[in-house]
Amino acid sequence: MIQRPRGTRDFGPDEMEKRRHLEAAMRREAALFGFREIATPIFEHTELFTLRSGPNVVEEIYAFRDKGGREISLRPELTAPAMRFFVNELSNSARPLKMFYFGQCFRYERPQSGRFREFFQFGAELIGDPGPESDAEIIALAASIMRRIGLKQYTVRIGHIGVLRSMLADAGVDREAAPLILQKLDKKEYDEASQRMRDAGMDDERIEKVIEITNTVGPVEVLDRISGEAREHLLGIFRILQAYGIDNIQVDLGVVRGLDYYTGMVFEMDAPVLGAEKQICGGGSYSLTELFGGEKTFSTGFGIGFDRTLLALEKEGYQAPAHGIDVYVLPVGDNARQEAHRIAAQLRQAGIGTDIDLMGRSLSKSMKYANSINARLALIVGEKEMAQGAVTMRDMVTGEQTLVKREDLVATLEKL
Amino acid sequence: MIQRPRGTRDFGPDEMEKRRHLEAAMRREAALFGFREIATPIFEHTELFTLRSGPNVVEEIYAFRDKGGREISLRPELTAPAMRFFVNELSNSARPLKMFYFGQCFRYERPQSGRFREFFQFGAELIGDPGPESDAEIIALAASIMRRIGLKQYTVRIGHIGVLRSMLADAGVDREAAPLILQKLDKKEYDEASQRMRDAGMDDERIEKVIEITNTVGPVEVLDRISGEAREHLLGIFRILQAYGIDNIQVDLGVVRGLDYYTGMVFEMDAPVLGAEKQICGGGSYSLTELFGGEKTFSTGFGIGFDRTLLALEKEGYQAPAHGIDVYVLPVGDNARQEAHRIAAQLRQAGIGTDIDLMGRSLSKSMKYANSINARLALIVGEKEMAQGAVTMRDMVTGEQTLVKREDLVATLEKL
Repeated sequence: MIQRPRGTRDFGPDEMEKRRHLEAAMRREAALFGFREIATPIFEHTELFTLRSGPNVVEEIYAFRDKGGREISLRPELTAPAMRFFVNELSNSARPLKMFYFGQCFRYERPQSGRFREFFQFGAELIGDPGPESDAEIIALAASIMRRIGLKQYTVRIGHIGVLRSMLADAGVDREAAPLILQKLDKKEYDEASQRMRDAGMDDERIEKVIEITNTVGPVEVLDRISGEAREHLLGIFRILQAYGIDNIQVDLGVVRGLDYYTGMVFEMDAPVLGAEKQICGGGSYSLTELFGGEKTFSTGFGIGFDRTLLALEKEGYQAPAHGIDVYVLPVGDNARQEAHRIAAQLRQAGIGTDIDLMGRSLSKSMKYANSINARLALIVGEKEMAQGAVTMRDMVTGEQTLVKREDLVATLEKL
Repeated sequence: MIQRPRGTRDFGPDEMEKRRHLEAAMRREAALFGFREIATPIFEHTELFTLRSGPNVVEEIYAFRDKGGREISLRPELTAPAMRFFVNELSNSARPLKMFYFGQCFRYERPQSGRFREFFQFGAELIGDPGPESDAEIIALAASIMRRIGLKQYTVRIGHIGVLRSMLADAGVDREAAPLILQKLDKKEYDEASQRMRDAGMDDERIEKVIEITNTVGPVEVLDRISGEAREHLLGIFRILQAYGIDNIQVDLGVVRGLDYYTGMVFEMDAPVLGAEKQICGGGSYSLTELFGGEKTFSTGFGIGFDRTLLALEKEGYQAPAHGIDVYVLPVGDNARQEAHRIAAQLRQAGIGTDIDLMGRSLSKSMKYANSINARLALIVGEKEMAQGAVTMRDMVTGEQTLVKREDLVATLEKL
């Protein structure tokens, strides 16, 4: 047997129904916020991803050379493609430009529980303005999506890249050393971070203060511990989010992103039910356009890990609505087959979900099959029924049977 | 600027709305027929595609070696992956098994008008029974999809691989020579086909008869020119399709598939509006499972070229519904911002599509923006309104303005 490639998945009908249901709910919520969908190719020039994430990213992605000798890669994320599209074709759109997307991403890494080589991301970008209103809009959308899909437990942690950056700058750390320090702080590797800060010439008191700040987590009041623009910006965001009644928000000044293109607010969302791998969403404000050859543009956005979010929902006991079909048509005897097909054609055209015996099965076997596909009603079409210009309608749950005139059939079913 | 890879496309909001609309219509129709969705990975082991289509297919697809040294390929079609999934995990499902799928496929070829390196396919497979009822069900679904999406002009041409196969076998052509002859006949390369038939020992009369048959196109009555099982099978299919009122069906015995795994009925659909590249759907009955290591299983299915079908619709003048949003909220003055956000949050939660000024624009600029996004109503939130616990509701088409009490707002909007 040929197997599917390692780290990928096939999705059967029940799984797909659940996934499409969730995807549609996310899409609807984004539309309610005035975001509109875009889509980009599955692969891009590798350069797009190395520009964003550095040359080492090639080690972790599906990078290959196509037959024309071009370096291309299966996309590991969707923000870089979306911003490439923006720079190429959408930069003259009215601002703010609000876009969302949903699709597969790929990374080459050892497959492990809950992490796949092909995974799905839902994300949104808001392009136009660096103000707290845009950041709040993005966070409100991410949180509203989680609320709408019915996730019971999740937290939003909001930080600001400017707090630590300005502390490092004030302490005389130069622009080259700062990103490496921030990366270590992001991973909470304090020994190495401290060593690097010492190497950059910081004294112990300042180092301690920086580490204290990365551990600043709590309600909006903890913002009193800092001052300046970042504080005002975060206060502005919290004020707006209040209007959304999202009460599971925290300040977390330890949310740090080492990369240069992050410009201010950063946030993460967790689903505690997932344990150690609990992050289900990450985002922030950034400026990538100039890296891709466009003008500097302020953007803010997020990516939701679709697979992990679904996993969190399921761990909380989420049950997708049971699958079923409205009607199963059973012809009894060969003479009834043509009439049965006519009925199926008519019902389907009227928008009534209809299946029909295609295997020439006996009545009892067909009933068993109708049960297995959760048909709500069976329509029995036999000689007796045809002689009366009617069909027998059987409720598959109660077993109750009624004779329905052929000409009343669609209207009767539409009323049920 | 970094460009997207050659032969791929980005889809902006208007285009995506159209595509999702069409995709949803196809998905709904398949569900009405009792088909359920599955999904498989974007890439597969290359062997899957060479087993189905022969080793030369590697020249035309995105085949590469991953970091673990595995030969993998971006999928060029979706039937082989679906049947691989069936053999791996679904072979014990109740029969018939009715599945459909939608997704990207990839081929490495010179990009040209209407042909892309990344393209989209919608397809369905029915697994279980070789009878005419299954074949008719599959053709009825393909035609019903075209009818449902509103394609005005299309034709269905139905043939049977058994007709020519048995003529060749009767003429003493051996199993190895037959596929090459069939391939030439499929491409209507009659000189080469004739030469090959002569080489295989056929006399001129039989050769002429074969070519005549491949040119047999017309209403169901042309089936009188042939006899045997294939005729009975096709008559059975036509009888059922009659029940669907699909009147643009023809017999076309020139629909030939050279590959061994086709077992009987073959069909194609054309949209004449597309000119030379008019085929929008192809399908037939086949048995692939044993190639992939499973038991022999009868299947019948089709693939619809999603991009070409959309193109045909557009050439016929199809207009997607105009995009718009229900409400645009405009705060007037800084004091109104918090209230405006509270209103937006409330409306969105009630399922009312709502956008809000995030840029701190003036009333007139905001009105212009609201127009540009096709907002149906503007809600003006100013000091005056707030003092009365109300908002001004402005119809963006008529310009009519009414004062609506804050507590009546959701109910008022839900009624509109």
